[in-house]
Amino acid sequence: MTGSTNHKSKFILQEQLEIHSQQPDSRSWGPVSQFSPGKGIMQQRRARIPKDWAGCPLPQQCDLLLAAAFVSDAQYNRNIPFKTSPEAVRLYHLYNHWMMRTATYFFIFLNLSLALFEEPAVYPLPFLATSVLEVLCLLVFLGRLTHFAKVTLHNVFWKDTKNICIMVAVLLSLADLAIYGVLRLYGVRSIRWSRIVRPIFLINFAESRQIRRAFRSIRNTLPEITYVFLLFMFSLLMFSLMALKLFGERNLQTAEGLPYFRNYLEIVFDLYVLVTTANSPDVMMPAFDFSSWYALFFIAFVIVNTYIFMSLFLAVVYNNYKKHLKNEIRKLAYMKRRKMIEAFNLLKEEEGEQFVVREARWKQLVKLVAPDTSNSHRELLLRISDDEQKGFVDKKSFVQLADLLNIQVVTLKIRRHPLARWAPALYGSAPSRLLRGLVRHRAFVWTYDAIILINAVFIALDEESPYISYAEWVFLALYIIEILLKVYTYEPREFFGKTQFWNWFDTLIIFAALTATILNATLKSTMKYNSQQILDIVFILRVLRLIRIVDSIQRFQVIMNTLINIVPTMLTFGGLTLVVYCVFAIVGMELFHGKIQYFPANSNAPHALECGNPALKDSLFARGKYCKNNFNNFASSFIVLMELTVVNQWHVFANGFANVTAQPAKLYFIAFHIVMVIIIVNIFVSFILEAFFVEYSLEKSEVETAIEQKIQELGMGVQEDELQHEQLLDNMESAEHELEGEGGAKPQSKGLVFKIASKRYRTVDALLQRMFEAEIPLEEEGPSFEEILNLSPTSAVPRSPSSESAA
Amino acid sequence: MTGSTNHKSKFILQEQLEIHSQQPDSRSWGPVSQFSPGKGIMQQRRARIPKDWAGCPLPQQCDLLLAAAFVSDAQYNRNIPFKTSPEAVRLYHLYNHWMMRTATYFFIFLNLSLALFEEPAVYPLPFLATSVLEVLCLLVFLGRLTHFAKVTLHNVFWKDTKNICIMVAVLLSLADLAIYGVLRLYGVRSIRWSRIVRPIFLINFAESRQIRRAFRSIRNTLPEITYVFLLFMFSLLMFSLMALKLFGERNLQTAEGLPYFRNYLEIVFDLYVLVTTANSPDVMMPAFDFSSWYALFFIAFVIVNTYIFMSLFLAVVYNNYKKHLKNEIRKLAYMKRRKMIEAFNLLKEEEGEQFVVREARWKQLVKLVAPDTSNSHRELLLRISDDEQKGFVDKKSFVQLADLLNIQVVTLKIRRHPLARWAPALYGSAPSRLLRGLVRHRAFVWTYDAIILINAVFIALDEESPYISYAEWVFLALYIIEILLKVYTYEPREFFGKTQFWNWFDTLIIFAALTATILNATLKSTMKYNSQQILDIVFILRVLRLIRIVDSIQRFQVIMNTLINIVPTMLTFGGLTLVVYCVFAIVGMELFHGKIQYFPANSNAPHALECGNPALKDSLFARGKYCKNNFNNFASSFIVLMELTVVNQWHVFANGFANVTAQPAKLYFIAFHIVMVIIIVNIFVSFILEAFFVEYSLEKSEVETAIEQKIQELGMGVQEDELQHEQLLDNMESAEHELEGEGGAKPQSKGLVFKIASKRYRTVDALLQRMFEAEIPLEEEGPSFEEILNLSPTSAVPRSPSSESAA
Repeated sequence: MTGSTNHKSKFILQEQLEIHSQQPDSRSWGPVSQFSPGKGIMQQRRARIPKDWAGCPLPQQCDLLLAAAFVSDAQYNRNIPFKTSPEAVRLYHLYNHWMMRTATYFFIFLNLSLALFEEPAVYPLPFLATSVLEVLCLLVFLGRLTHFAKVTLHNVFWKDTKNICIMVAVLLSLADLAIYGVLRLYGVRSIRWSRIVRPIFLINFAESRQIRRAFRSIRNTLPEITYVFLLFMFSLLMFSLMALKLFGERNLQTAEGLPYFRNYLEIVFDLYVLVTTANSPDVMMPAFDFSSWYALFFIAFVIVNTYIFMSLFLAVVYNNYKKHLKNEIRKLAYMKRRKMIEAFNLLKEEEGEQFVVREARWKQLVKLVAPDTSNSHRELLLRISDDEQKGFVDKKSFVQLADLLNIQVVTLKIRRHPLARWAPALYGSAPSRLLRGLVRHRAFVWTYDAIILINAVFIALDEESPYISYAEWVFLALYIIEILLKVYTYEPREFFGKTQFWNWFDTLIIFAALTATILNATLKSTMKYNSQQILDIVFILRVLRLIRIVDSIQRFQVIMNTLINIVPTMLTFGGLTLVVYCVFAIVGMELFHGKIQYFPANSNAPHALECGNPALKDSLFARGKYCKNNFNNFASSFIVLMELTVVNQWHVFANGFANVTAQPAKLYFIAFHIVMVIIIVNIFVSFILEAFFVEYSLEKSEVETAIEQKIQELGMGVQEDELQHEQLLDNMESAEHELEGEGGAKPQSKGLVFKIASKRYRTVDALLQRMFEAEIPLEEEGPSFEEILNLSPTSAVPRSPSSESAA
Repeated sequence: MTGSTNHKSKFILQEQLEIHSQQPDSRSWGPVSQFSPGKGIMQQRRARIPKDWAGCPLPQQCDLLLAAAFVSDAQYNRNIPFKTSPEAVRLYHLYNHWMMRTATYFFIFLNLSLALFEEPAVYPLPFLATSVLEVLCLLVFLGRLTHFAKVTLHNVFWKDTKNICIMVAVLLSLADLAIYGVLRLYGVRSIRWSRIVRPIFLINFAESRQIRRAFRSIRNTLPEITYVFLLFMFSLLMFSLMALKLFGERNLQTAEGLPYFRNYLEIVFDLYVLVTTANSPDVMMPAFDFSSWYALFFIAFVIVNTYIFMSLFLAVVYNNYKKHLKNEIRKLAYMKRRKMIEAFNLLKEEEGEQFVVREARWKQLVKLVAPDTSNSHRELLLRISDDEQKGFVDKKSFVQLADLLNIQVVTLKIRRHPLARWAPALYGSAPSRLLRGLVRHRAFVWTYDAIILINAVFIALDEESPYISYAEWVFLALYIIEILLKVYTYEPREFFGKTQFWNWFDTLIIFAALTATILNATLKSTMKYNSQQILDIVFILRVLRLIRIVDSIQRFQVIMNTLINIVPTMLTFGGLTLVVYCVFAIVGMELFHGKIQYFPANSNAPHALECGNPALKDSLFARGKYCKNNFNNFASSFIVLMELTVVNQWHVFANGFANVTAQPAKLYFIAFHIVMVIIIVNIFVSFILEAFFVEYSLEKSEVETAIEQKIQELGMGVQEDELQHEQLLDNMESAEHELEGEGGAKPQSKGLVFKIASKRYRTVDALLQRMFEAEIPLEEEGPSFEEILNLSPTSAVPRSPSSESAA
């Protein structure tokens, strides 16, 4: 999931470019903790090699494969301690294949989504079907685990709690399934309690490294959070005691006519709700009506608890997040360095006084590691690594390879427009040139921005008027003309390049809108019937078109860049939220299933107004018409949990569900609030803050500068300044003009131009890692594997005597 | 206000200590910006001296006075460009006198609180009385300003917008007062519009430097916030348009039976409210009831707008806050260095190859700057400054003086208990020693913690039972015994030292509770009547006693330290909030005064249930019984604004007040939300985050270490380690034991012990400043005044050729 969706965030806006890019992060992250510290894995691995090599036909090839595995791991920050035997390395390549990972994710999500089909189901399936599916998923998980066991060392595998967790979870699920199945045969209903272990698979498979990191971050924060929480609880209990004494014997009533502040536990709950602000000012009004001075009590309470303590929670979470994030990133950076050195040691040959890797081997390696890289790109990398063209790459340059591969070098292939080839006279004629000039002009963009704005006004106006529905056709036509003009001006294959997100976005939305509008018009004229679904889609598509206007304003682009860069890591929080939601939804369904029913507005069912439960009579829950917010199936539960995450009115839910079951049910809602809002939302905010600051403070890395210099030296560069300050379209125009005008006076013989992809499409993780790497001197090898794994957030960068003994 | 309340936060917990402490910050902060940049003030000042000195009897004394003014300014970070003539310096000393500053604050708050007595009044006073008071306040402000004008240079004074602001505000107020008075004589009612300029005095008087800094911070953040806000508004408008298209023609109804999502502007308002989460999930329910899929629309909306955009606002505010804070602190640090060099140049004499300040002059200077410092403390400072006892202080050591004075050196005076002097046999007897040993033992604290906990349970129990009301007497007796025992064990004058906050707290609360309980019992037995006010106070006092338990747990102390350190700067936000509240309250009263009335529950007035206004029939406002939340007087307005700050239900207020006036009234509430919640609360959170991180990352400064070393060298120190890890009581016990046992074997001949006050009582501002000072090398003089004033957050530390030409 994380891996596949990352791809989507990588679209690059430039037109007429073809981009070969490497993903700098997170396709699959092995956890740092799965190494067994203090064991000297490298030594173990080295010691085994002689035996393993016995089965290898060409030792050099085996070395290359192994080195490729190291480099690939360094590039993608994978930390799996695989075995170094040729079969193990081949299995390891297979293990990391995108198909295998995608399949694993597919089965994880299939397993999680089974809750939709099991009772209480959204779409009921027979028990047999769901259980067969579940067994299938569990088998896949076991298979994946077996594959992993074959790749990694035995003692490492069995020491990893992650693997044990998965095995236990699989066994528990199978046992529970069997028990439930047997009991069902005998007509006994029991609880499918093993369903809450399902999120374990999402957390514990090596691919979801970032989710595990987030969980580790939470675990690390817990002790400190706990102290703040205890102090907060003390404050809450004290204020509650004061409230009991001050208001308890006043015989006051709430707006609903219920007794006000009589029972200590209820006061604690009410004041806890006030901390979340959800019952402000209602909880204050009876006391305030009695005497204005009592408002001071509530003001003091809100300042102390809502403002100070809640900020303190954020501060503690953020502080720990930063601290541990830095430590983990540091570990990753050292790991990467180590792996590159291992790879170097495998391929090195003696050359004069130093060890080097020869050009031919280096090329083989790069081909293995990054098979998608174009020849020209590889040549560029070689020119950077082998700066003086000596025919070999030294250790220092070799270590940089992982970073080099991670930098998105954009290969701009300048192609002629097909029309220019097929009908050069027509395409090169003065009107055609004028037209293309117009389309390339800034005013063209502005004109269409204006058209979009006018369109927005028309959308807001009443649909019924015939002029307005005709206007919609005009707008559609205008948009289609825009696309046709652009395709006429720019090379179509470039225009629809796989990374041209906005072009695809525009075109797809407009054609979908056109199709849907035509479909709807047809339906309406033939059957006098508006299809609701189609209309909804048309409406949404029309409005989505307006987004484009944002990207044409420079200032907004900066903010959008930050937001786009945040998206991939935000998916981690999606995963985290999913885990918490799944667990709470499953528990919630067991606790509250069927207690509250939803009836349509005109239903005649008994107690329809009280959600089918007389216990809710006169409650705020029923009065707010919240009946559809229930735990009757997995989807509803998710929506309720979403509403609880937003916090507002959560006490109405808590009271409602406590009314239909028992008062301790409120604990479920308080627990959810603590876990989701106090911890996870704060981590989310910390993450956004940190991401924002990193984006803000980042400059170009050393390696990037090296690449750029080399590109400029080779005369194959595009001025970065131009690219930053001008629209890419204009830039490409000038580049093309140059070609046309000067006839290739510059050494762009192959029609190739390189540039480094803009900061826009880098993930925060990659940025952070680079920030730390800048602190490690290039010459240094860093600490050994075991030392890296034992790094704590407080320890300084270890300066061990470099341990080349492993080679 | 800031100045006087800072004192309260300085209480030091140690018992048997007498503390001479200097306030490291903010008694009076001159704004950095009042220097006219590029003018070379020092040069001007120097150039004037020959003329001014003509009227000075003893030039040396004048120099000393001037140097003292510089050092004092450096110590308290005042940045007022005062004239250097002897009269001006004397006037300047007077200007900075605490009485003058307190008086200014008094009149500022008197002026602000006039709103309580003017119509619509909480406590009505005749117009004549309030206008006389206002004229008095304005005269005081003018007087203060005149004083300032005499102290500072003319061109500086007239270039400072702050001074112009005050003058304009005074003139406007007088003009408005005159017009209103005249119109009133003719029976015409007009608006006292000048009341909203009153907060200007709070912002612009030199004493409230921190509030101005906060305003500057807001001003600096505005451009960036605006871009994010525009993007956010775009997103809001787009989602609203989608909502209009999706739900507008469904004929849905809200839970109140009103049309749902029909009008575009209403949708925008509703969705804006949803961003603040105040109407979640109500705003979603009609669409959700219609089709479950529509929930996705609201989920997407909340994720994009509530979670991402609101976090982005925090990130932008925090980022700017940090950036500008650092710059201002840097300016302050350079300013301080400069002023110390000026002072040095005034007092220097030639000694061998270097210029120095002789011991006698140095002592005179310290006496002038810090008259409260004890002789022993001054001697200690001299020993640190004149390390090798040469009889003079060199430039480098002299520059440190401001920091030395700012470090709270605690002078521990070890006195014998009066009883030990008056009845040594009895006090020294075995049972007495045992008793004192018991009181000093940790178990004594634990026992009383347990008693407090049991007391808490008793408080929570029913008051009616006679046993429990008797128990209260028992607890009171126990607490009094505790205090008596402590006074018996520890020296009473030390026990009630002015900085022994917790001792005072305990004693006052217990004696107040005792008095109130006796009073209540007397009233009850004689008149069968419980005085409500007394009872309330007794209840609150009883519960407050429980706070003490927190301070005896080590882990909580750390958090409490952070919180206590935050308090002084939190007052800045109090000021900021006060300014915003005043302006909005005055505007609110003009807009909504009298529109909503509060009637007691059993009132027979017409429309009592609709808050006296039929327009509120069936509104949520009336149904929530919010009638007492109105703008009918200054106090009520403040409470309403407080509730709006808490955000929840603010849309009910907005709708309610819009119903009784006009729909655009909602803009008032939206404006308040943007100003207060999006900007000021975020600055508050930024501040808490930063304060927390600074507290967390701070270590001892160089100067502090120097002082500590010297204290240790002199053998007058108390081990810091002991102090940190053990209870201070125990530590003092051991110190006393040593004295008693060894009979002064250590050179504590005067019964004096020094120690550096713990980190606990430092303000965040002082901490931050020290963090930056650590970056400036001690030898360097830093840039010139003009350069300092032009420092921008992005510019590097300027390295100018040191400009000693001013000397």
